[in-house]
Amino acid sequence: MTYTIKFLPQNNSIEVDENESLIRAAMDAGVHINASCGGTGVCGKCRVLIEEGEVGGGISEHLSSEDQALGYRLACLSTVTSDLVVRIPVESQMETSRLNQTSLSRHTAKAMFTNVDALRENGLFIPPVEKIYLELDPAGEGDNQADVARIINDLRLKHDEHRLTMGLGMIRKVPDIIRKGDFKVTATIVRPVRKDGKNRIINIEPFDTSERNFAIAVDIGTTTVYGQVLDLHTGEILAQHGEFNGQISYGEDVISRIVFAEKGDGLEVLHQKVVETINKIIEKIVKKSGIGIHEVSTITLAGNSTMTQLLLKINPTYIRKDPYVPASIMYPPFRATKIGLGLADHTIALIYPGVSSYVGGDIISGIMASGMYLSEELTLYMDIGTNAEIAIGHKDWMVCTAASAGPAFEGGGVKFGMRATKGAIEDFSINPVNFEPMIITVGNVPAKGICGSGLITLAAKLLETGVIDSRGKFNRNLSTPRIRKTDDIWEYVLVYRENTQIDRDIAITEPDLDNLIRAKGAMYSAALTLLEEIGLGVKDIEKIILAGGFGSFVDLESAITIGLLPELDPARVTYLGNGSLLGCRINCLTNSLRRNVAEVVNMMTNFELASTPSYMDHYMGALFMPHTELNYFPKVKARLEGLRK
Amino acid sequence: MTYTIKFLPQNNSIEVDENESLIRAAMDAGVHINASCGGTGVCGKCRVLIEEGEVGGGISEHLSSEDQALGYRLACLSTVTSDLVVRIPVESQMETSRLNQTSLSRHTAKAMFTNVDALRENGLFIPPVEKIYLELDPAGEGDNQADVARIINDLRLKHDEHRLTMGLGMIRKVPDIIRKGDFKVTATIVRPVRKDGKNRIINIEPFDTSERNFAIAVDIGTTTVYGQVLDLHTGEILAQHGEFNGQISYGEDVISRIVFAEKGDGLEVLHQKVVETINKIIEKIVKKSGIGIHEVSTITLAGNSTMTQLLLKINPTYIRKDPYVPASIMYPPFRATKIGLGLADHTIALIYPGVSSYVGGDIISGIMASGMYLSEELTLYMDIGTNAEIAIGHKDWMVCTAASAGPAFEGGGVKFGMRATKGAIEDFSINPVNFEPMIITVGNVPAKGICGSGLITLAAKLLETGVIDSRGKFNRNLSTPRIRKTDDIWEYVLVYRENTQIDRDIAITEPDLDNLIRAKGAMYSAALTLLEEIGLGVKDIEKIILAGGFGSFVDLESAITIGLLPELDPARVTYLGNGSLLGCRINCLTNSLRRNVAEVVNMMTNFELASTPSYMDHYMGALFMPHTELNYFPKVKARLEGLRK
Repeated sequence: MTYTIKFLPQNNSIEVDENESLIRAAMDAGVHINASCGGTGVCGKCRVLIEEGEVGGGISEHLSSEDQALGYRLACLSTVTSDLVVRIPVESQMETSRLNQTSLSRHTAKAMFTNVDALRENGLFIPPVEKIYLELDPAGEGDNQADVARIINDLRLKHDEHRLTMGLGMIRKVPDIIRKGDFKVTATIVRPVRKDGKNRIINIEPFDTSERNFAIAVDIGTTTVYGQVLDLHTGEILAQHGEFNGQISYGEDVISRIVFAEKGDGLEVLHQKVVETINKIIEKIVKKSGIGIHEVSTITLAGNSTMTQLLLKINPTYIRKDPYVPASIMYPPFRATKIGLGLADHTIALIYPGVSSYVGGDIISGIMASGMYLSEELTLYMDIGTNAEIAIGHKDWMVCTAASAGPAFEGGGVKFGMRATKGAIEDFSINPVNFEPMIITVGNVPAKGICGSGLITLAAKLLETGVIDSRGKFNRNLSTPRIRKTDDIWEYVLVYRENTQIDRDIAITEPDLDNLIRAKGAMYSAALTLLEEIGLGVKDIEKIILAGGFGSFVDLESAITIGLLPELDPARVTYLGNGSLLGCRINCLTNSLRRNVAEVVNMMTNFELASTPSYMDHYMGALFMPHTELNYFPKVKARLEGLRK
Repeated sequence: MTYTIKFLPQNNSIEVDENESLIRAAMDAGVHINASCGGTGVCGKCRVLIEEGEVGGGISEHLSSEDQALGYRLACLSTVTSDLVVRIPVESQMETSRLNQTSLSRHTAKAMFTNVDALRENGLFIPPVEKIYLELDPAGEGDNQADVARIINDLRLKHDEHRLTMGLGMIRKVPDIIRKGDFKVTATIVRPVRKDGKNRIINIEPFDTSERNFAIAVDIGTTTVYGQVLDLHTGEILAQHGEFNGQISYGEDVISRIVFAEKGDGLEVLHQKVVETINKIIEKIVKKSGIGIHEVSTITLAGNSTMTQLLLKINPTYIRKDPYVPASIMYPPFRATKIGLGLADHTIALIYPGVSSYVGGDIISGIMASGMYLSEELTLYMDIGTNAEIAIGHKDWMVCTAASAGPAFEGGGVKFGMRATKGAIEDFSINPVNFEPMIITVGNVPAKGICGSGLITLAAKLLETGVIDSRGKFNRNLSTPRIRKTDDIWEYVLVYRENTQIDRDIAITEPDLDNLIRAKGAMYSAALTLLEEIGLGVKDIEKIILAGGFGSFVDLESAITIGLLPELDPARVTYLGNGSLLGCRINCLTNSLRRNVAEVVNMMTNFELASTPSYMDHYMGALFMPHTELNYFPKVKARLEGLRK
């Protein structure tokens, strides 16, 4: 059920789902309401008048009974239960006219999602690791074929499975298992990548366990590691969880990790740390799913080349040294226990292949998840994170590159940076007259910090209202106590301590903005350089696919305003969220993907930005918001000029 | 250089090599000379008169100077250095006439040998594990492909090697090795069995080591384990060595080993013991070869199904329980260290496949070595050992079976039984008048015991001279002190204590003969049963191939006389010696064999004697020498009748 809400005096309308928070609806409609507590009802500032319709809740001690009788409610405590006309109280006509023109309504990217039913209909829902129940003919007079041969022949004759092999470890267990199950067993089979490859029988269990087959997908980010448990019969995600990568204390970015790995037992330490992180996640999600660890048949992992090599305990030093050579781009399937993962003996680990030292398995995983290798439209794929990874192309060709963006998008190098968990400031608008903020936090709880998508919106809104200039410096002349200098650093106070969870004022600082500008500059200039190298321009892009932790939250107009994304109709932008994790998930569900991966990796041309002279120029030019060259952003230019008239 | 020797009064002539011992020449010519000390010059009984020509040596204190002047020499101390006419002194004319007809001259089987040059000429000298030297293009500007990809692409483009894979363990080492060798490396590659299988890169070494590539072949016998080091460039055997299987103290035959393995940590103990034995052999032969252990790229092992499963630590209990099921017939290649072998990390172990619980990898290995799967002639393959293993067939079909023969052929269950090492009585004849023996030992040293081939000749000669009857019982009425009853057991004294190394009389006893008869009965009746099952008879056999430790020593006529082998022209009998070891050796040299093995195993039909009712009847009939049914042995029958006239 959706309802229409009209906000006055702006006269903006928006359709929202039933039970949406009214303050969120206002934010999405581009309507500013002063609200500094993050939408928790504490500050009492978000008073609105319900002129038509009824809301759920909205009552607070901040409202007198008279006000309540008049129809005033706190927007943050109100939920939408009918069509509404809502009036925002304003202090002056000037304010009314300015508010009227400030913000664009929010546009987040459409989500791409994995359609398991479609996979099934196309006959592609064949996981790389399957279970098959076998009712073997019992050994007896006139039939004393070997146990392993009995299993293989049964698979061959009754299940049309061929080219089967079994390793020594498994053969050792077969004689006892086959009899424990009274010749009724379940075989777990790993499919080959190539059709003429071998099907490996990795497990034999007594009796019928074929309905219990699960997989784990893991994205190993430099900062954060995410895992999911998947039911290989339904395709469903049973549980998921993320943890900071335990390597963080040894360096925030891949280069510092590599430097650490080069010393003493550094490689071993970093290997252990990421394995510990993954094991912690596995333990949690397996428990949450209510499955047994031995029921997990396979795990697919993706990470950038450094993360992959550290996971596999492969010396990463040549990744950071000219000419930047990774150990391998493809890795064979292996037993998960071989690298210390807390899974069963038989569980098979699959590693996403990469392309180069700086275009790793994570981006390939995302590209596979995006389906752009099947598309006819020229697509720009951007994986926004500590490492900016970019691919451009379509079904016939693909180029890619990577740049170091720094950790700003993931909350690193930002004074109050945090991940997009409860209490993170995720949306923001600013009153252009008195510069009071409107803040929404994840989970509508008092603020704890700023997440990546929040940071982008903050920067965009501060820029639009002239609180900062195109270099991210605060306007020192504005009359608001929120702009101040603390410890010699200029900042804007988003939430005063009494409304936070952390007993400190939460602010955004000039160094935070510097880091953001460098990050977005790296990202944009990488895309620009890549386009230039193949003789194309920004205008040729027909579609953008965003990957990265905040893909689902980032406001596209804000991202365009600060010059992170090229100007494109928001309707042509889709997001994958964590593309790497999604690619791992799809890899667990359909073996056909593994076949396609090899093709994609082979057709991918990699550009090294370090050896592309124009990159540095593009980067320098991108250290402004949106850009030094405003012709790349004609609409943003026009809008900013309009706002500042 | 060969010389002709004529023995008088028998008038037998024989050609022998220069420096052959005269007593050995006499034995081979079927000429009896009393000699009970084993050919060591101690007893002084083997006086012969050199009537024409000259011998080397032959002088002894047992000969007076007058005798020496007349031309008397001790045969055992004389070596052949010219054509000779030699007269054997006899005590009576009766003796002369009897001696004249006793023995046939010796016929041992022709040896088959492996022609490495022929393999090479046919383009088949492609070992399953090869080394290839690579001069890689160094990584540099414009070429920063991954290290593993660089190796694989070089193999593909410059060496026409395709379908290559590399495991995680190896990938880990590549980045450092490739740079240690300054982009000059040697790749070790394991070939697939099927042409469309994968080539596995199992090792990368810095610089050019391609000329140093070695393999080890190991035959794991229930009693003895043999190993050889092979140079994979020349095909040469660089060293070989045998040791008793360390499992022996846990049971002499496979059944008692299996029973032991079923209790407590029995499987682990037996696994450890055989691995220790193999490791001891590896250490010795590697040292003897002057190679480094890391230069051994591959090891091929063959054993019967029980030995194989114990080596691989696979519960063997179902091998001995109806319906006698082995765990597997095929085993995948694996790292030798995986089962504890003292080889390098990268060394690949190949295990010969078997067919059933009682027709194991050792017989398949022997069959492959024999080449009978390529032959057009109907061939009987007999592997004579504790386990009697038999195959019949040719290039179009093959059947096989196995029976337990007991350890008599390997010196087990024989009072003075021993292996065919120095001091073992290996040849024997007997004076039909006074029943004095002529004895030759291995190495011409004082006797220590009786080896398997010696036992067969002993039985045959005792049978021919009527010292024993067809059931192996001594004729109690002969007037010789050598036949006597000790501790209630009848025996024939071969060597009195003063001429032995062991300070005891060495004798052959009725229980020894019983064991031999059971062993040869099992062997012969297994062949007979198998022939009957496929509708053929003994007469259809065109060729016999003998495998087993004593294949090279056994006197074929003796083996036929006691009914171990069917009556066939000795010229149609060849021996492989240790067929299993030879098959392993060939497997190390040519990968084409591995392809053929799968075909042979598939075309092989296995018969279980336990479920073939006629086997027991045939076995009972075979408990006589040569057989109850004398029609199977018309020539032996005629000869025995002639001798006893």
